[in-house]
Amino acid sequence: MAKVYNFGAGPAMLPESVMLKIQEAWLDFKGMGVSLIEISHRTKEFEQVLLKAQEDFRKLTNLQENYKVLFIHGGARMQFSALPMNLAGRVASKKCLYVESGNFAKLANKDAKAFCDVKVIASSADTNYDRIPQVTPEMIDQDAAYLHITSNNTIYGSRYNSFPETGNVPLIADQTSEILSREIDYSKFGCIYAGMQKNLGPSGAAIVVIREDLLGHASEQTPPLLNYTLADQDNSLTNTANTFAIYVTGLVLEWLLEQGGVAAIQKQNEAKAKVLYDLIDSTDYFRGVIQPEFRGTMNVSFKLPTPELEAQFLKKAGAAGLYALKGHRSVGGIRASIYNAMPMVGVETLAGFMEEFKKNNG
Amino acid sequence: MAKVYNFGAGPAMLPESVMLKIQEAWLDFKGMGVSLIEISHRTKEFEQVLLKAQEDFRKLTNLQENYKVLFIHGGARMQFSALPMNLAGRVASKKCLYVESGNFAKLANKDAKAFCDVKVIASSADTNYDRIPQVTPEMIDQDAAYLHITSNNTIYGSRYNSFPETGNVPLIADQTSEILSREIDYSKFGCIYAGMQKNLGPSGAAIVVIREDLLGHASEQTPPLLNYTLADQDNSLTNTANTFAIYVTGLVLEWLLEQGGVAAIQKQNEAKAKVLYDLIDSTDYFRGVIQPEFRGTMNVSFKLPTPELEAQFLKKAGAAGLYALKGHRSVGGIRASIYNAMPMVGVETLAGFMEEFKKNNG
Repeated sequence: MAKVYNFGAGPAMLPESVMLKIQEAWLDFKGMGVSLIEISHRTKEFEQVLLKAQEDFRKLTNLQENYKVLFIHGGARMQFSALPMNLAGRVASKKCLYVESGNFAKLANKDAKAFCDVKVIASSADTNYDRIPQVTPEMIDQDAAYLHITSNNTIYGSRYNSFPETGNVPLIADQTSEILSREIDYSKFGCIYAGMQKNLGPSGAAIVVIREDLLGHASEQTPPLLNYTLADQDNSLTNTANTFAIYVTGLVLEWLLEQGGVAAIQKQNEAKAKVLYDLIDSTDYFRGVIQPEFRGTMNVSFKLPTPELEAQFLKKAGAAGLYALKGHRSVGGIRASIYNAMPMVGVETLAGFMEEFKKNNG
Repeated sequence: MAKVYNFGAGPAMLPESVMLKIQEAWLDFKGMGVSLIEISHRTKEFEQVLLKAQEDFRKLTNLQENYKVLFIHGGARMQFSALPMNLAGRVASKKCLYVESGNFAKLANKDAKAFCDVKVIASSADTNYDRIPQVTPEMIDQDAAYLHITSNNTIYGSRYNSFPETGNVPLIADQTSEILSREIDYSKFGCIYAGMQKNLGPSGAAIVVIREDLLGHASEQTPPLLNYTLADQDNSLTNTANTFAIYVTGLVLEWLLEQGGVAAIQKQNEAKAKVLYDLIDSTDYFRGVIQPEFRGTMNVSFKLPTPELEAQFLKKAGAAGLYALKGHRSVGGIRASIYNAMPMVGVETLAGFMEEFKKNNG
């Protein structure tokens, strides 16, 4: 098969060396003669996988001891319900604050409404989410259970390049499409979570990092498997865990350490994004969909002069092995998701293709 | 590595040909140049995987058109909460009936209590779950939302060899450790569900089969990803599905069709279980933990004369490549889980080992 570069937004490409390791150990995990997916979540071999993944995550993020690393069933969307179930009970009013910076940020507060009193304190919906809305300290009701943000907006590519100061209100971030892509001070957050299927592993599970003083407030009607306190007590083994997702995530975390950790991968991510943004900024032919000051490094969304040219672009890109570049239906255009696992050569190949396409269709 | 037979209760062994297919396609799914776990759940390639799995499940079970086949995040335990959330609202009283035939049956009604009015109508707890408790039609309150049973009890190996008559009350079965192991008339059930990690695929997801007239009753506080009605509307793609679990399950379903379907696998399962039960019945050295009339074909639990001999048995079995035979901690002794994927030669090897052990330690 020809070399393919996969720019899909998720489930997304994983590091080649990780994929090869999984394939190699597929029928014989650690000399057991069986596959990792065929062993009990209660074996010492799996426990080792779980503990190592938690430990490596801590290393990569310099996580303080008072934060817990949990693995929960379902992706980020399941946490949209689980979060208010677990945390709204911190305050009698069940008031929870949300910032709406994109479709998933909106969905997060929509799903939360069944479990708490949602207040959307800022939104960029009126400019079709072309920016991160401003949040000032005065906007944050200090009696709220938490403030929820979506730190990187997958569909648009915008991200918080600085985080709101929330006083005593725990800041919670959905980091699904950017987790471990840049250095972040986790101690500024009460809780961070991410679906695995972009920067961590396969789909179907989430990582939840939570400060321990926020545990213990789950509503009685929280399903046990969505109860963070119980997950902490049982170290994510209340029932049969998603062993495959935790295993793959563990390998990705090892790979990140081999790359030099988050600081090193951040530099690579910045260099990769710069290649595309420099090209976009050098011409009117490609137009970014978000305001430049909110650009992140994971998802680069842009448009061509006409929808017809975009259709042609996508068709030719696919034929050239540049895969899954179609923008989300709510925005249209082109989106290149360039997560941690995307090598620079993939981005350069895309940039070369863009230049060529512009020359031939300018 | 030496040949190993894996008798683990779950996550359990999968058919060798399925494991080889996954390995072969690992880096290049359907000529795409990327792995199945690296493509979007919204691609036509994954949609094809999902639709084919649903279609094959229907073929294997002769499922009537008014039943829906859903894939839900989390294993069976997550459904312990989801079921009452989705179905208790069928009746104003929220009364739900449960039969307690084992640890998981008990956990199912314990988890349900947060969401409905649980009535345990029969239990075999007082005889340490050595049987399926009798359920007569008079015991079933016709005003209840449903009657929940655990059709096969993984820990003990007992199963319903006939099902209760429930009148108008929908019968719901947790089939986790026996799904597709024997022919069952699904039209007698309102809903059947199973965690995947025994007879279907990897851990982390469940299949839920539900009669369509039971949809539409979810409580308002049901997380969207646990709402069966929404899962049906979106054909299990409300959010990013567990693509890997659905893919592997699809391959297992294809393999079952190749084996001749459920009738054929049932015969094999009966022959496999008979080898072990005949040996157990031929001696006092091995003693089954359940009453013979409730024996199933999936989990064969038995004891040796002393715990010391059991420890020795497990140690020698492990050294001989007979893996994961330790009984559940609540029962002790030995448990051989011989799911659909376990070949007869594995069972015969175990039986030979048992005979030999008895001879040397009798």
